[in-house]
Amino acid sequence: MSAQIIKAKLATIDKGSVTSPQGFMAGATYAGIKQPGKGVLDLGILASEAQCQAAGLFTTNKVQSAPVKISKKHLKSHQAGAIIVNSGCANACTGKKGLADTEEVIAMVAEGLSLSPENILVASTGIIGTYLPVNKISENLDKIVFSAEGGHDFARAMMTTDTFPKQKAVKVTVGETEFVIGGVAKGAGMIHPDLATMLCFITTDAAVEPGFLQRALKKAVEASLNMISIDGDTSPNDTVIILANGMAGNEEIKGSSPMAVPFQQALQEVCISLARDIARDGEGATKIIEVRVQGAKNLGDARRAARYVVSSPLVKAAIHGNDPNWGRIMVAMGMSGAEIRESRVELFINGHLLFKKGEPQSYSDPEVSSSLNQSEVVILVDLHLGRARATAWGCDLSEEYVTANSDYST
Amino acid sequence: MSAQIIKAKLATIDKGSVTSPQGFMAGATYAGIKQPGKGVLDLGILASEAQCQAAGLFTTNKVQSAPVKISKKHLKSHQAGAIIVNSGCANACTGKKGLADTEEVIAMVAEGLSLSPENILVASTGIIGTYLPVNKISENLDKIVFSAEGGHDFARAMMTTDTFPKQKAVKVTVGETEFVIGGVAKGAGMIHPDLATMLCFITTDAAVEPGFLQRALKKAVEASLNMISIDGDTSPNDTVIILANGMAGNEEIKGSSPMAVPFQQALQEVCISLARDIARDGEGATKIIEVRVQGAKNLGDARRAARYVVSSPLVKAAIHGNDPNWGRIMVAMGMSGAEIRESRVELFINGHLLFKKGEPQSYSDPEVSSSLNQSEVVILVDLHLGRARATAWGCDLSEEYVTANSDYST
Repeated sequence: MSAQIIKAKLATIDKGSVTSPQGFMAGATYAGIKQPGKGVLDLGILASEAQCQAAGLFTTNKVQSAPVKISKKHLKSHQAGAIIVNSGCANACTGKKGLADTEEVIAMVAEGLSLSPENILVASTGIIGTYLPVNKISENLDKIVFSAEGGHDFARAMMTTDTFPKQKAVKVTVGETEFVIGGVAKGAGMIHPDLATMLCFITTDAAVEPGFLQRALKKAVEASLNMISIDGDTSPNDTVIILANGMAGNEEIKGSSPMAVPFQQALQEVCISLARDIARDGEGATKIIEVRVQGAKNLGDARRAARYVVSSPLVKAAIHGNDPNWGRIMVAMGMSGAEIRESRVELFINGHLLFKKGEPQSYSDPEVSSSLNQSEVVILVDLHLGRARATAWGCDLSEEYVTANSDYST
Repeated sequence: MSAQIIKAKLATIDKGSVTSPQGFMAGATYAGIKQPGKGVLDLGILASEAQCQAAGLFTTNKVQSAPVKISKKHLKSHQAGAIIVNSGCANACTGKKGLADTEEVIAMVAEGLSLSPENILVASTGIIGTYLPVNKISENLDKIVFSAEGGHDFARAMMTTDTFPKQKAVKVTVGETEFVIGGVAKGAGMIHPDLATMLCFITTDAAVEPGFLQRALKKAVEASLNMISIDGDTSPNDTVIILANGMAGNEEIKGSSPMAVPFQQALQEVCISLARDIARDGEGATKIIEVRVQGAKNLGDARRAARYVVSSPLVKAAIHGNDPNWGRIMVAMGMSGAEIRESRVELFINGHLLFKKGEPQSYSDPEVSSSLNQSEVVILVDLHLGRARATAWGCDLSEEYVTANSDYST
């Protein structure tokens, strides 16, 4: 790491998208994979004018979709030129035919874009256990019109039960050097336990060394998208990909570059924004819950404790009902495996101290309850055992979640 | 282990309870800890005429209630004479005062029963973070009338959101020898992720060596109560206790006794019956789900896979809606960490083959859906990787669960 301190300016780009960085284009169409509806899109392509350095992270579920298997293989070269995505069909649990179907779609895209198939990455989301309607895709692929404004359509083509597209772009300025990082994501589902697919694609026009690109992505995802879902809770399709096309003309960023710090910072800002949007848009969610754990013995403990709290259905249901049932927060932390001593814990909901050093605190129930009746709830726990801290995001659990998930495939 | 094969007869006792074994008495009263209501009981005592060998298993949550801490301490002697239980207040997250309150209640019971305090075990269930109303308990303790039929009242005194008491007793006959095992449990909550307290008390008039008693209890619980809740999902109050008073006059059962096998079998039968009742009575549940995993590589894998399926909110919600969304079952197994090869898996819902060797099977959606519209649903998965098998039980996830848990403490 360099000791050189550089001044970086990070600015959110208004209506930014995955095509905000230079040289990225995208487009989408309706191919009839999802149920029809006004303005519905279900097939999108994101492409770069220049070949990209690429890195990815994939589901740890032992059941992996055909597109995940193929994208992992294609990413071994750390090179890619385009991503094709569809919603409405996950192409998971579909055996050899599923793999052949995805290969066929990739071949069509490769031909259309004059790229080699190995340079194309792919992602699907939707119902598990149904075959990809390859004919519908082949009939509609030509309708996709690429443009530098196409990021917004691409974002909509990924949506399943999402109620809004999730996009973010940040411009980084360091002296004469400028680059942009853009991102798009889909999520929904109860977040935890989250079997709903999380897809996230990030683009940048910065030139980035592939080893650092992979490490930077992992670090950013651990502090963002991994903090909205508990370890191991994964769909067969979860995919995060970053493409860096170098068109900003900067000196290639390595782990030792002064530019590595602002790059990491901007990447994290994009990922946290997308993660928060996914949490906010959980199925049936009426509010976002932010859980901050501080004073943990180590980072692993802080993350585990924060994730367990934000993932507890009983905590989520209580917050839905504006019920300051803080005992459920203590219990969720107790289950997390993180080191906890009841006699040291301080627990706040929306700034109200409810538990301190092993003893319940007296508080105004109506006051705390009314503070819960808003679109953002903050739970803060200080474990007073060390200096590590972590933040996790989730949503409340409403009756609508159950209704939505009782009748998805039929 | 003995190679001797003995013929044992196991018979369920009609209206059996925790006082079915000889020499056990129980009683209960309403002490005003829970909200009042017709026939509501919230304070119960179970006692044995003779001193008992005792063994117990407790929550693995790092937040542990005062009664759990004290019962663990008292069980070090492997001896006990009585159990006092209350519902309406968990006495958890209550610090030093919570411990002093429980000690005070134990002292009162010890005096009333002429036992030493160390011979009394204790359990509480209800709201976390409120102090035990010791005055109410002291004022009402004398109202408890003990009898050999008191097991049923004792069962009701433990209930929180349970809709029915959970009891079972089995009589074991081997030649001239007869003994009885009785049990009572409370559960409710979504089972998984289960922050609702599980309390289970088992009695037997058999004479049992304490080391074997502890091992037999652990083995029985692993195949029953642990199969309705996933590892680590625990309340601060979870407690399983077994008392063996030896009044059947049998030769003390050790691990090497021929009688060890029928004892284990009967104990498991009692525990599985109680576990199934807890699953059936999950909050808002309309049906019980039984998940059988076979062909697993080892027992740990079989149990993990079965538990993950029965614990998946998306599986539970789909079954609630009579939706044969088998992909969610595959995904839950994929998250469990158990070894799985998609290309070998066979998956059945209520006897309908839906997935085989990596390929979705064609089936009649209305037929499978209508088979889900009943009070018991059986999911069978053969992993075709080995010979281990396990069964887990759970319930569907309904809108009522969320409603029930949005407004518990207020």
